[in-house]
Amino acid sequence: MAQRLLVVGGDAAGMSAATRARRLSPDLEIVAVERGRFTSYSACGIPYLIAGSVTATDDLVVRTPAEFRAARIDVRIQHEVVGLDLDTRRAEVHNLVHGRTFHLGFDLLHIATGARPVRPDRPGFELPHVHGVQTLDDAARLLDDAYRRRPRRVVVVGSGYVGLEVAEAFKSRRVEVTVVEAGAEVMPSLDPEVGARIGKALRGMGIQVMVSAEATSVTETAVQTSAGDVPADLVILGTGVRPDSRLGADAGLETGLKGGLVVDRQQRSSVPGVWAAGDCCQTFNLVSGQPSYQALGTVANKQGRVAGINIGGGYTTFPGVLGTAVTRVCDLEIGRSGLTETEAGRAGFAAVAETIESTTAAGYMPEARATIVKLVAERQTGRLLGAQTTGGRGSAKRVDVVAACLAARLTVDDLLGLDLGYAPPFSPVWDPLQTAARALADRI
Amino acid sequence: MAQRLLVVGGDAAGMSAATRARRLSPDLEIVAVERGRFTSYSACGIPYLIAGSVTATDDLVVRTPAEFRAARIDVRIQHEVVGLDLDTRRAEVHNLVHGRTFHLGFDLLHIATGARPVRPDRPGFELPHVHGVQTLDDAARLLDDAYRRRPRRVVVVGSGYVGLEVAEAFKSRRVEVTVVEAGAEVMPSLDPEVGARIGKALRGMGIQVMVSAEATSVTETAVQTSAGDVPADLVILGTGVRPDSRLGADAGLETGLKGGLVVDRQQRSSVPGVWAAGDCCQTFNLVSGQPSYQALGTVANKQGRVAGINIGGGYTTFPGVLGTAVTRVCDLEIGRSGLTETEAGRAGFAAVAETIESTTAAGYMPEARATIVKLVAERQTGRLLGAQTTGGRGSAKRVDVVAACLAARLTVDDLLGLDLGYAPPFSPVWDPLQTAARALADRI
Repeated sequence: MAQRLLVVGGDAAGMSAATRARRLSPDLEIVAVERGRFTSYSACGIPYLIAGSVTATDDLVVRTPAEFRAARIDVRIQHEVVGLDLDTRRAEVHNLVHGRTFHLGFDLLHIATGARPVRPDRPGFELPHVHGVQTLDDAARLLDDAYRRRPRRVVVVGSGYVGLEVAEAFKSRRVEVTVVEAGAEVMPSLDPEVGARIGKALRGMGIQVMVSAEATSVTETAVQTSAGDVPADLVILGTGVRPDSRLGADAGLETGLKGGLVVDRQQRSSVPGVWAAGDCCQTFNLVSGQPSYQALGTVANKQGRVAGINIGGGYTTFPGVLGTAVTRVCDLEIGRSGLTETEAGRAGFAAVAETIESTTAAGYMPEARATIVKLVAERQTGRLLGAQTTGGRGSAKRVDVVAACLAARLTVDDLLGLDLGYAPPFSPVWDPLQTAARALADRI
Repeated sequence: MAQRLLVVGGDAAGMSAATRARRLSPDLEIVAVERGRFTSYSACGIPYLIAGSVTATDDLVVRTPAEFRAARIDVRIQHEVVGLDLDTRRAEVHNLVHGRTFHLGFDLLHIATGARPVRPDRPGFELPHVHGVQTLDDAARLLDDAYRRRPRRVVVVGSGYVGLEVAEAFKSRRVEVTVVEAGAEVMPSLDPEVGARIGKALRGMGIQVMVSAEATSVTETAVQTSAGDVPADLVILGTGVRPDSRLGADAGLETGLKGGLVVDRQQRSSVPGVWAAGDCCQTFNLVSGQPSYQALGTVANKQGRVAGINIGGGYTTFPGVLGTAVTRVCDLEIGRSGLTETEAGRAGFAAVAETIESTTAAGYMPEARATIVKLVAERQTGRLLGAQTTGGRGSAKRVDVVAACLAARLTVDDLLGLDLGYAPPFSPVWDPLQTAARALADRI
């Protein structure tokens, strides 16, 4: 009799695995259970849906349940797995439309339950005009609410990537936007002086920025903070996410950082025959060698692919993350890869850093814009540890070059010697990364 | 008594060396002799000067002779070194303004005489309306000539990077432009099917493209080709360049590929105390391990820096080139790094390649444009050998990631696993490079 694979969660990490397993193991029966109404969508596209540059929620869907069914993956949307018995290999499934519960047996299990927004346990954060933007269903609710309320003042609590992207989205709709950040600078995942530059740029775009401001409560009309009240018709949670690992943890799977499910290089959980991938998992950082949590679509897709290949009887491993992330807020691009100077110190590296200013194109080209590169390396060996960039068009994705260098454990000298592409529309003759490498090499 | 360093050539490779040597060796007397009127300029900016997006020739000058003199580098412009005696360490220098010749002794010598355009030895190619675009003096002559002639029809002979950039420049000035290419497709340095796509795109922009058309002669009013005559008021040589190594070769220095001066990893020539860097040298390709000739500003700057550090008593080496090059023609970006499939075969690799189509941003973003990636790898090992990209904004500089992978000898699987930055304005969730890597990994 055919074995049955149960996939819990119908987004990137779940459906990548299902697709790969399907291809490698034609006899496998595959059932995928998704709590929401959408499968395999781009949650990262939600800010552009809010801004209106993407016009339909469906545009963010890469593959619909019907398409998966045509590929012999039995997708059940609006169904939630509410319990797992890993001994008897049985799941308790709740049909969210009819309210009925039933049991589903499985041989193999893949958990891809994603993440949920951190919702501060403080007064008012449960009010209906306080929105997370983690799932496409969240986005649909937010759009609906924004349509009804027609907010004039939006407060974004937290200033990570998603927070800033949503702030830009509302700003582009001519809504007054305030970002409230508890830390000393915006983007607390970057080094503070880099965050300070970004904060300044945001203010220049007309986005109000409050730093060192703890949001203490939300009322119908305002967000109360340690630095004063801010009027708000609508509140967005940009305070990050945590693994939604409760289902796996309750079933006895080992958990680690932030409660993420612990997996090995094949994305196998602590129980045989059970895999996990994506935002519900802990992963590890290739540079620090330490456990890491990285809720990103790229990681979810890659891990899902790895899990699916291994589930289907193939073999492959996930190489770890580098902490790479990029974003754009209006004309400002922001990128990072590897460790910040702060993170490098915390990981035990004797780090040395240099920050340089350059341009995104040859200085004489009309399209040249300022760009800043901060490069971090190990003092004794010159080994590259990380990069942060911010500036005009072309600034963010430059960190991909550093990502490749980090994966290969290259040094500052190696980066300086790299034969990078040059033409006046793309960079000065010394690419900004190499101007930074040259400055750092001179210091080491 | 202080030693004297003579630098022959006042552009990137010469002046980078002079600057570095100056910094490391404060007692050294440094004399730099430049035939033209400009020092340390961006020859790559010439097409933008023609287009008018850069308005003044001086904008392309990074550092003037006066600035160098202030840094105690004695620059003599409009002087040409016409002979070198390496035994007596004496140069014969011709003052091009006064017509006088004098001798200059030296202890150390750095040769950075650059390249000159290939000018076919065929009738009419010596006519005054046939222009190379190698030096800023060439550009000044061309601009002057174009101003006087007000050409309505320009023919570019050859379709390399510079040829296409100049074609775009004239096109942007509403001049009728025809590119005449002897090879089967434009950009013969790329694989033919990639060149075919670029040819199609150029035609779509209104640039006329003739392939398999050998330019046999030039008259006052036309370029005659094996595929018919093309009316032309002005002709541009886009047929590539050759090392201008005659001075060094005549003095007895060893030469190699295309007559380029042979240098070691420290940029030392075959004679002790004599260095060379930039377009007048042969270099080597890191991927093929074979001699290579790469007349590019980035290489010249890097090699000049290496020579200068070694001249100044420091130690560093040039790591070799990867054949990286990028350009933009109207909205079309083109990039390459490493070996093409053709070059890989010629170098003895059993190569396998995949070409994929993707988008420059998430497919649902309004700014998403088509992009094509061709990835070449060694069949047995999966080692990456090269990449070619072409498409919308963001296509070209993606090859820099591949450059880093090539320098580190990473495999297709390594590239597939890389933690590259993702956000909807920058790429689909699988970066186009990784979509190509995935396709190639599936085949290997």
